[in-house]
Amino acid sequence: MDFSVEELAALLGGQFVSDGEPRVRIRRAASVADAEEGDVTFLSNSRYLPALRSCQATAALVPADFREQIRTAAIRVDDPAGAFAGVLERFAPAPIRAEPGVHPSAVVVGNAALGEHVSIGPCVVIEPGAQIGARTVIHAGSYIGHEARIGADCEIGQRVTVGARCLIGDRVNLHSGVVIGSDGFGFELKEGRHVKIPQTGTVQIDNDVEVGANTTIDRARFGRTWIGAGTKIDNLVQIAHNVVLGQHCIICAQVGISGSTRLGNYVVLGGQTGVIGHIELGDGVQAGAQSGISKSHPPGTILWGSPAAPLRQMKQQMARVARLDKLVERVRHLEQDATRGNSLPGCM
Amino acid sequence: MDFSVEELAALLGGQFVSDGEPRVRIRRAASVADAEEGDVTFLSNSRYLPALRSCQATAALVPADFREQIRTAAIRVDDPAGAFAGVLERFAPAPIRAEPGVHPSAVVVGNAALGEHVSIGPCVVIEPGAQIGARTVIHAGSYIGHEARIGADCEIGQRVTVGARCLIGDRVNLHSGVVIGSDGFGFELKEGRHVKIPQTGTVQIDNDVEVGANTTIDRARFGRTWIGAGTKIDNLVQIAHNVVLGQHCIICAQVGISGSTRLGNYVVLGGQTGVIGHIELGDGVQAGAQSGISKSHPPGTILWGSPAAPLRQMKQQMARVARLDKLVERVRHLEQDATRGNSLPGCM
Amino acid sequence: MDFSVEELAALLGGQFVSDGEPRVRIRRAASVADAEEGDVTFLSNSRYLPALRSCQATAALVPADFREQIRTAAIRVDDPAGAFAGVLERFAPAPIRAEPGVHPSAVVVGNAALGEHVSIGPCVVIEPGAQIGARTVIHAGSYIGHEARIGADCEIGQRVTVGARCLIGDRVNLHSGVVIGSDGFGFELKEGRHVKIPQTGTVQIDNDVEVGANTTIDRARFGRTWIGAGTKIDNLVQIAHNVVLGQHCIICAQVGISGSTRLGNYVVLGGQTGVIGHIELGDGVQAGAQSGISKSHPPGTILWGSPAAPLRQMKQQMARVARLDKLVERVRHLEQDATRGNSLPGCM
Repeated sequence: MDFSVEELAALLGGQFVSDGEPRVRIRRAASVADAEEGDVTFLSNSRYLPALRSCQATAALVPADFREQIRTAAIRVDDPAGAFAGVLERFAPAPIRAEPGVHPSAVVVGNAALGEHVSIGPCVVIEPGAQIGARTVIHAGSYIGHEARIGADCEIGQRVTVGARCLIGDRVNLHSGVVIGSDGFGFELKEGRHVKIPQTGTVQIDNDVEVGANTTIDRARFGRTWIGAGTKIDNLVQIAHNVVLGQHCIICAQVGISGSTRLGNYVVLGGQTGVIGHIELGDGVQAGAQSGISKSHPPGTILWGSPAAPLRQMKQQMARVARLDKLVERVRHLEQDATRGNSLPGCM
Repeated sequence: MDFSVEELAALLGGQFVSDGEPRVRIRRAASVADAEEGDVTFLSNSRYLPALRSCQATAALVPADFREQIRTAAIRVDDPAGAFAGVLERFAPAPIRAEPGVHPSAVVVGNAALGEHVSIGPCVVIEPGAQIGARTVIHAGSYIGHEARIGADCEIGQRVTVGARCLIGDRVNLHSGVVIGSDGFGFELKEGRHVKIPQTGTVQIDNDVEVGANTTIDRARFGRTWIGAGTKIDNLVQIAHNVVLGQHCIICAQVGISGSTRLGNYVVLGGQTGVIGHIELGDGVQAGAQSGISKSHPPGTILWGSPAAPLRQMKQQMARVARLDKLVERVRHLEQDATRGNSLPGCM
Repeated sequence: MDFSVEELAALLGGQFVSDGEPRVRIRRAASVADAEEGDVTFLSNSRYLPALRSCQATAALVPADFREQIRTAAIRVDDPAGAFAGVLERFAPAPIRAEPGVHPSAVVVGNAALGEHVSIGPCVVIEPGAQIGARTVIHAGSYIGHEARIGADCEIGQRVTVGARCLIGDRVNLHSGVVIGSDGFGFELKEGRHVKIPQTGTVQIDNDVEVGANTTIDRARFGRTWIGAGTKIDNLVQIAHNVVLGQHCIICAQVGISGSTRLGNYVVLGGQTGVIGHIELGDGVQAGAQSGISKSHPPGTILWGSPAAPLRQMKQQMARVARLDKLVERVRHLEQDATRGNSLPGCM
């Protein structure tokens, strides 16, 4: 699919302001850093203007008040970033629709209940008693355990494991390699050996949750590990047994949350953050990347550092540490003064 | 399965002390935080008494000396936590028993040796020369490489990889997504390119080891990467080539251990800890979460921080950093005093 | 395969200098720490001499100027480490050659284009429009998405996912459990809900790249996430959407790189390092393990710490923090002096 610069300007309700040839074809959308001939790009922040000037793009969406002379054909629009998102959609490859039905290589054992228009890919294994909701797609090589229940309109990526009795809501997206319902990590030391504590609970994932590639969510010791509706979890995250995440949280890549910790709604944890077990983070708590959260915090707290403290306090502390050389210098001066002071004539 | 409050008290040898109706049915066991009507919960720590008071549970196991008035039917027992564990077992869903035999969709190539009552799940692939011990279960989608040897009574989860020639002992539990025997990360820079150093060793995992979901254990450069008997490893852990873990270690989630490092027995590493290569941690070394261990430590050392230091020293250092504002203030006072001192009449 | 000590010395062009029996058989190569009777080991660093003295090895490759008396038969060579690498190759098990052809259990959907001598293992799934280059091996249980292109002479491990339209060069090695082309983590908060931003780009992996077990590389928001030629990535690494890695980088285990960040060539990131999004690290930047890189750095910068700073600066800062107790002591002395000073007779 391609457009002329002119057509693109018309589609976006924008104004084509360049001297260039309006019938040049645009075949792709790209960022200022990547754009080449035949591409349309956009400028929403004047910080990227130098990059735009040296960019090979054929056209650029620019703000309505843009008056620079650039080599690239400029199309003035009200909201370059928003308009560009629309252009991206037009250039996006057609989405891949999974065929409804059960692939002949899939293994559906016993009495699994499959909803209407379900798509079960090659080499998928579905155990007895599992339920799959309408229009849900289960991609190649995934495993759905005994009596697991998956809602409607879900997308279960390739090579996902959903363990026995786990509950997945509607419109949930589990990316490739996710493991839901592995055993919680619980042992009791008896006569010098770690004896396994049975992990007989489940995992419950509510509607509209997304879970990133190779993330692991352990089943509860008993009861459930619970991910609230609308929460989004990135890749390679570890969620331990009996953890409760509220609704609409954002959990970035490689975060680890230890057992029985509870997060409120709209909590945001930056990448590689670790959270200790058995604590509570209130609604809207946010933590910077690599934080180490070792105690409960009330709603709205902004955290950073390891051990994590409120952001302002942590920044002050870091600034003081960075200026330690100056403090050492001041103490040295005081010591010199003191020595000189003691030897002042007439003072003793 | 359900019980009346009365039956439950009798089963536990406990004393039913509430005014309530002894024939009310209990259908589930739950924590104080989660319990609803129809549930039995427990109180082992008076810290949770306020939560118990507002809890909807139908019954609660309480200490023998418990004398509070609560709405919930109270059953006095000697050890509420222990008794509750027993109740959990009674309410636990029946364990899922894998059928012995080889699923028709499994691919057992050539001359693999399968022990008695082995269960090989759907879409499992077993390469030539592999050996699987008696009663071992290999779940759906797993891969057992050439000449790999797996002992008896193991549970190999879904979509596990055990690479060629790796050795797994008896009663080993590998959770879903584990990769045993991927290549160690070793390269030599030659004329500007990283040339791969062959990784021709194996991984040896001794008896009674558990390895968490999506954890990776690399094969040795030569010889073996070795996990000692009874060691328990959590999810998303990275164990590099030629690492040796002793017996009965506890390695929490997202820990990374670099090449050729050796741990003694009963070492405990908190979540997200990193350990540099080519060092030794003695028996019983423990490290707090997110530690960064950059040198060898003798047996019994308790570590924290990054770079990690003995816990007491690290706590003192952190306390000093937290009080830096006060130190700055004290220096400022001294400076003011000094200035005033210098201008004192009669002193010069 | 085995050799006598004498044969080994001759093979290596070395000098057999021990009093021992030259016809004793050597069956294995092992490190000084692991070597037992029947093994050959090596000594390249005098630091390991005590270990060699107590080692049970039957033979040891030692430097040409080695004159110690040891129990082990010594073979003097110019480069013990290099010679040992050669010995390792001789003792290495024969590499496992994958049979060319498509395993009957593999599912090749529609019109995938398979090059000459390609090997497609059991339970592999290849979607329509995919292209696989000559002599590439795709191991058991892997998934190659729609229109994905994989070059020649690649080794794709067990249970790998390569998503739709991703591009993989020649001689690329993806280890077991790798996920290429999962969705980037991008959402827009609208009326209290995180709305998914379509991730319509791809991943491009250039020639001679190696990617470790269970590592995840997300597809771009648009355009491509790009891994430059010759770059080596370890296990459990997270590479977010639109990240660009240059050529010949070394990315150690459990590193996380956030969206749109660009690395130059020959960048080295130590284990568990985190890099924030939208920054640039110049050619040859190196970061120590567990660094937290929060801003751009010019070529050649050596970084450490979280937040990361140039290594020298960070080391000085850490030294100052470690000596804080002494600074506190000095301030206390000054305060005592000041108190005494104020009360000095004749001074006021």
